Amino acid sequence: MPKVSQKGIKMPESPIRKLVPYAEAAIEKGIHVYQLNIGQPDIKTPEVALNAVKNSDISVLSYERSEGPEEYRRKLANYYQKNNINASTKDIIVTTGGSEALLFALGSITDPGDEIIISEPFYANYIAFSISADIKIVPIISDIEDNFALPCIEEFEKLITPKTKAILICNPGNPTGYSYSKEEMQKLADLVKKRDLFLIADEVYREFVYDAAEPHQSVLSNFGLEEHAIVIDSVSKRYSMCGARIGCLISKNPEIIKTALKFAQARLSPPTYALIASEAALDTPQSYFDDVIEEYKERRNTLVKELNKIDGVKVATPKGAFYCMVDLPVHNTDKFAQWLLESFSLNNETLMVAPGAGFYSTEGFGTTQVRLAYVLNKESIIKAIAILKAGLEKYNSL
Amino acid sequence: MPKVSQKGIKMPESPIRKLVPYAEAAIEKGIHVYQLNIGQPDIKTPEVALNAVKNSDISVLSYERSEGPEEYRRKLANYYQKNNINASTKDIIVTTGGSEALLFALGSITDPGDEIIISEPFYANYIAFSISADIKIVPIISDIEDNFALPCIEEFEKLITPKTKAILICNPGNPTGYSYSKEEMQKLADLVKKRDLFLIADEVYREFVYDAAEPHQSVLSNFGLEEHAIVIDSVSKRYSMCGARIGCLISKNPEIIKTALKFAQARLSPPTYALIASEAALDTPQSYFDDVIEEYKERRNTLVKELNKIDGVKVATPKGAFYCMVDLPVHNTDKFAQWLLESFSLNNETLMVAPGAGFYSTEGFGTTQVRLAYVLNKESIIKAIAILKAGLEKYNSL
Repeated sequence: MPKVSQKGIKMPESPIRKLVPYAEAAIEKGIHVYQLNIGQPDIKTPEVALNAVKNSDISVLSYERSEGPEEYRRKLANYYQKNNINASTKDIIVTTGGSEALLFALGSITDPGDEIIISEPFYANYIAFSISADIKIVPIISDIEDNFALPCIEEFEKLITPKTKAILICNPGNPTGYSYSKEEMQKLADLVKKRDLFLIADEVYREFVYDAAEPHQSVLSNFGLEEHAIVIDSVSKRYSMCGARIGCLISKNPEIIKTALKFAQARLSPPTYALIASEAALDTPQSYFDDVIEEYKERRNTLVKELNKIDGVKVATPKGAFYCMVDLPVHNTDKFAQWLLESFSLNNETLMVAPGAGFYSTEGFGTTQVRLAYVLNKESIIKAIAILKAGLEKYNSL
Repeated sequence: MPKVSQKGIKMPESPIRKLVPYAEAAIEKGIHVYQLNIGQPDIKTPEVALNAVKNSDISVLSYERSEGPEEYRRKLANYYQKNNINASTKDIIVTTGGSEALLFALGSITDPGDEIIISEPFYANYIAFSISADIKIVPIISDIEDNFALPCIEEFEKLITPKTKAILICNPGNPTGYSYSKEEMQKLADLVKKRDLFLIADEVYREFVYDAAEPHQSVLSNFGLEEHAIVIDSVSKRYSMCGARIGCLISKNPEIIKTALKFAQARLSPPTYALIASEAALDTPQSYFDDVIEEYKERRNTLVKELNKIDGVKVATPKGAFYCMVDLPVHNTDKFAQWLLESFSLNNETLMVAPGAGFYSTEGFGTTQVRLAYVLNKESIIKAIAILKAGLEKYNSL
């Protein structure tokens, strides 16, 4: 029998999705499962986006331009400029989700064996994308005790080799919820300019920052990174339309855009219906975001407050996004998460969490942590954390 | 300034799309351009698919399962079985277009430096996908004089090295229009079994075969290739819904499915609206296909008849798909195609063709050929070929 590739063997199973069979078995037993494991919000998609698709007048569902329709990119540029992000129409390539934007970015700047530096913990699929691109992630540990703030910039510099092509940040962070300050961003900017690296910034949670005194700092806002910055963006979280699969890559460096466009042309075009929804979503009224941010802020506050009631639990208070990394008083959260689904329930309910180790590339790290996504309403969060508390007590008494 | 990757430099510009600026300039001058360069059919998308989206009742546009919804895969399996293709629900991973299915296939079976053998000319984006995966295409020339039939199987065997992982075919062929006979498929099957290779079959033009006496031969129909075959499929051409961006990868080899699923999980899910359209499209009545195939058959016959009226033109009569490779009496079809758009018109009309060299990886091949896509109605085809005839006369008298 012909064999699969080494790359294929190394590809990780999704740490977020690998518990799904256990959750499905629990649901089959009639147990309600609070799903705090995945970033699928319950927030309604703006009606203006849904209606645009329902009212679309298509007779031939044709290819769109590989880089996305001119009109959509023009409106996107307008949105970015309003958000103090230096991007014009020609700097944008529309992609099939933020995932594809990152694949295009990696393809455009790395060859097999190249390295990118990422602060741990990080979005689990970065591991899959780096294996897919045959490159090496060089991790640098950030600390739950500091709420996962930027590690000392000198530590980044020590890790730079001739093979280093970029530093990749997720800001605000999945899974950390950390949002980098202007000072932190300036340090990163100075370093990539000094060492001639790219700075890839995954900014898909841009809107989700909860302290007005510390606004989001885009890599394309006033850091002089026109040649170095590559922004990864997505409509998935902003408009609660994860299923659209529309994102974009932004760069002021024309060589990056020219190169990424060749990757875009190979896959022909982004999905047309989703483009219609995404373009219309740009007309979402500000009140929608005000309500959503207020909702998430309350959820965050509720989650942190409830978690702090549990002995031995350590919480990194998130400043943004809708994730929270939590250190639990157990030895192995992989086993604990499975146990919660397989063997525990409270009033016929249990919860599903994402084990922490999947967000680290360094062996042995994150094994006592879990990521909780606060994508459910407050009442559900309160119930879920009560189940977690009872579960921990039971588990530690076994 | 940080530099783009070697891979990024090597990525080809789309040979099909690189003439677009010249076409746009022609259109701006008020010239009508017959676009025979790209496989975007003018055929209407089935209403059942369009209506399913218009009537969709979504309030949160959520992620779907990474491998595609169970129900859609079940219905797809039913469609394949009806088409004498051995595939069940568990053998199918739904992808974002056929493009992504091929990327997953290459990722699952190749590592950097590996080789795949492809008969030339082939779909131009195979070059881009192989560069993206850091693998090498080993071409084997098929001949326009034979209508691009399968090259001698011994020639394939000579090219196999320890790095060869697969033979890739497109059947029916883009750009050749050739449809492999049962005997040709059996030869390929015997070879991949003997040499323990995968046989990847891009079958996105399955429905478009014009001689009832020579039905399409799927790689998963009775060739005993359960361990070796990987099918690439797409809804783009079947239902004239190129803009949906839904395809799938099919394999009876569970290791391939397990591995491809990891690539699928990394990018989360295919686009939700397009899944709704694609599932509904499976209910398209047979009369739709009968009409469409009859239409394409007449277009093919018209195109071949009109081309044969031109001195010095050699046509490979297509058995399937909706492309035709044509040898023209010019030295360089890249230059000729550009000239048609920049400097020629007949009654204020011109045509756009895809230069042949982009469909070959061997330097110097295909330079006198063009690919014509018969995606316009008969009247337009007649007019377009009249322009081609006049253009050739003028060009060769310059």
